[in-house]
Amino acid sequence: MPDKDKYLTDEDAVVEFLRKRFAPGKRRIVQGIGDDAAVFLPRGADEFWVVTTDMLLENIDFRREWLTPEQLGHKALAINLSDLAAMGARPRFYTVAIGLPEKTKREWISRFYRGMTRLGYSEGAALLGGDLSRSQSLQITITAVGESKGRRVIYRSGARAGDVLYVTGALGLAAAGLKLLMAGRRRASSGYQGKALRAQRMPLPRCDVGLWLADSGLVSSMMDLSDGLSSDLPRLCRASGAGAEIEAARLPLFPHSALWQCNPLDLALHGGEDFELLFAVPRRKVPQFEKSYPKVFPKATRIGRLTDIRNGVSLTTPGRHPVSLPALGFDHFRGNPRDWH
Amino acid sequence: MPDKDKYLTDEDAVVEFLRKRFAPGKRRIVQGIGDDAAVFLPRGADEFWVVTTDMLLENIDFRREWLTPEQLGHKALAINLSDLAAMGARPRFYTVAIGLPEKTKREWISRFYRGMTRLGYSEGAALLGGDLSRSQSLQITITAVGESKGRRVIYRSGARAGDVLYVTGALGLAAAGLKLLMAGRRRASSGYQGKALRAQRMPLPRCDVGLWLADSGLVSSMMDLSDGLSSDLPRLCRASGAGAEIEAARLPLFPHSALWQCNPLDLALHGGEDFELLFAVPRRKVPQFEKSYPKVFPKATRIGRLTDIRNGVSLTTPGRHPVSLPALGFDHFRGNPRDWH
Repeated sequence: MPDKDKYLTDEDAVVEFLRKRFAPGKRRIVQGIGDDAAVFLPRGADEFWVVTTDMLLENIDFRREWLTPEQLGHKALAINLSDLAAMGARPRFYTVAIGLPEKTKREWISRFYRGMTRLGYSEGAALLGGDLSRSQSLQITITAVGESKGRRVIYRSGARAGDVLYVTGALGLAAAGLKLLMAGRRRASSGYQGKALRAQRMPLPRCDVGLWLADSGLVSSMMDLSDGLSSDLPRLCRASGAGAEIEAARLPLFPHSALWQCNPLDLALHGGEDFELLFAVPRRKVPQFEKSYPKVFPKATRIGRLTDIRNGVSLTTPGRHPVSLPALGFDHFRGNPRDWH
Repeated sequence: MPDKDKYLTDEDAVVEFLRKRFAPGKRRIVQGIGDDAAVFLPRGADEFWVVTTDMLLENIDFRREWLTPEQLGHKALAINLSDLAAMGARPRFYTVAIGLPEKTKREWISRFYRGMTRLGYSEGAALLGGDLSRSQSLQITITAVGESKGRRVIYRSGARAGDVLYVTGALGLAAAGLKLLMAGRRRASSGYQGKALRAQRMPLPRCDVGLWLADSGLVSSMMDLSDGLSSDLPRLCRASGAGAEIEAARLPLFPHSALWQCNPLDLALHGGEDFELLFAVPRRKVPQFEKSYPKVFPKATRIGRLTDIRNGVSLTTPGRHPVSLPALGFDHFRGNPRDWH
């Protein structure tokens, strides 16, 4: 990177730059640029409304031959609903702008929308409209709109040193599925492979969990894991003005990916696309949280804690010195270790 | 078109197909797929909220060398605000998903957002957030959100046979500007060329006019002219279940485009990108409308009237038989006469 000031080479740098320069006025905006989603309060409304936009580009975010049209439709919406989940908002509506290469068949479009609307329906979100265009390669931009429950919205910025960090589900599944796809394996030859491929192709946004967590009043900070723990956790830390210490031994790995030559710990740390929730619980609320967290939800695993900001973000392994955790997750803007082109 | 059923080759056909198959449930949705924008009612809110999404793709909707970054930012947002204007909604917020080619300079990004936020500011809309990605070519998807005034929103579908049709401003300016750009002329050599280039590069959404028209209670149907009168008017007619008769002699042309070998009537009919408002006024309200329409607004010109649906959409010229008006405007999906690649 010869001229770091002139070219913006890092997604976080661009977001920060935009946040500072183009921060909106306060008029009914509760949260602008910089969190998983933005929050506003319609005049007279009972609830906060939450908006998020995500773009999926062929050959950057996905390869068309890796997913069925239904799976792509599902995934494109899931990514957006996950952002709403991370704020604790209920999905309500979404719009879809889609650029389609020539000769896209009616059947392909129909199946794409079927996959998308099926997920939308199951999460309570309705397709409101959108835009269509020819384009060279397939591209999808979805904007999803959700509603808070009791005006309780959780930001990245609420955590403090001492808060305990949790994640839902297991980490590294989607990346393990990606490895299979990159190796040319599109069909699972075992149940574990099936699980990994499903996580990669049809991630399930944690909408119910996010809503429960926000409503519980026990969570100080939350975000979803889209780019990998090592990239996302520093964002939560920066927003909260804290450091963090992760215990490698506690991470909910997907150990079976070792069967196809993956390193489960690496994938859990840097893999991305898990769309699990990362959240913090103040220490004094931990017992109540652990008692009340619903058993029907995907397991919430304690993975470490927030520390003083001077600690940075570190990883501890039994019998070793803590090491600083490098951000090796996915940066949509820079291209990166997970990049395949 | 060998297999019309298999490939969707027409934007209107795709929209209609999606509207029928994936129409959302009624839950708090006032208007779904198929108008300039969608409308919903947040629980408890005083007003309807209106959402629209538009995509701008390099080499399909614009060429990068034809606009400064500020102009592109302005235009991308203007297109969306124009959709809100066409519903009679006040712009409030917008999100921006942008795909940037490698080596985009920080200065370019800053200038793009400056052009966009300047227009947003002047129309009362704040940048709420968005998404960023690397991509092969530049692409911008904006979702804009607006608020009604007194819950008066105007749809395409409200017009009836006999209603009088009006447009704001002049038609064919933006297309005349496009002709200049396509001929390699990026700087105006006369005031007229300057006007045409400005209309093409920095269209002004008719937000105040749209809001006034909706609030006046005098308008039965409205839309914005993005693809050209010959493409857009049939959409209003279809939605309203009516036909229309346009009088060529009444159209507010931009005659000066003849100076650079354009046909002003053709551009007014088929040119597109004027982002003027097309609206209908019931006959009995015409006198009141003509009396009360504010003088400070761009002129509203009576261009014809709605007819029985069996009439189709026709054009009358003094001394000739009415001819049916072919839709030669811009179809983002099909590619078309205005297409330059």
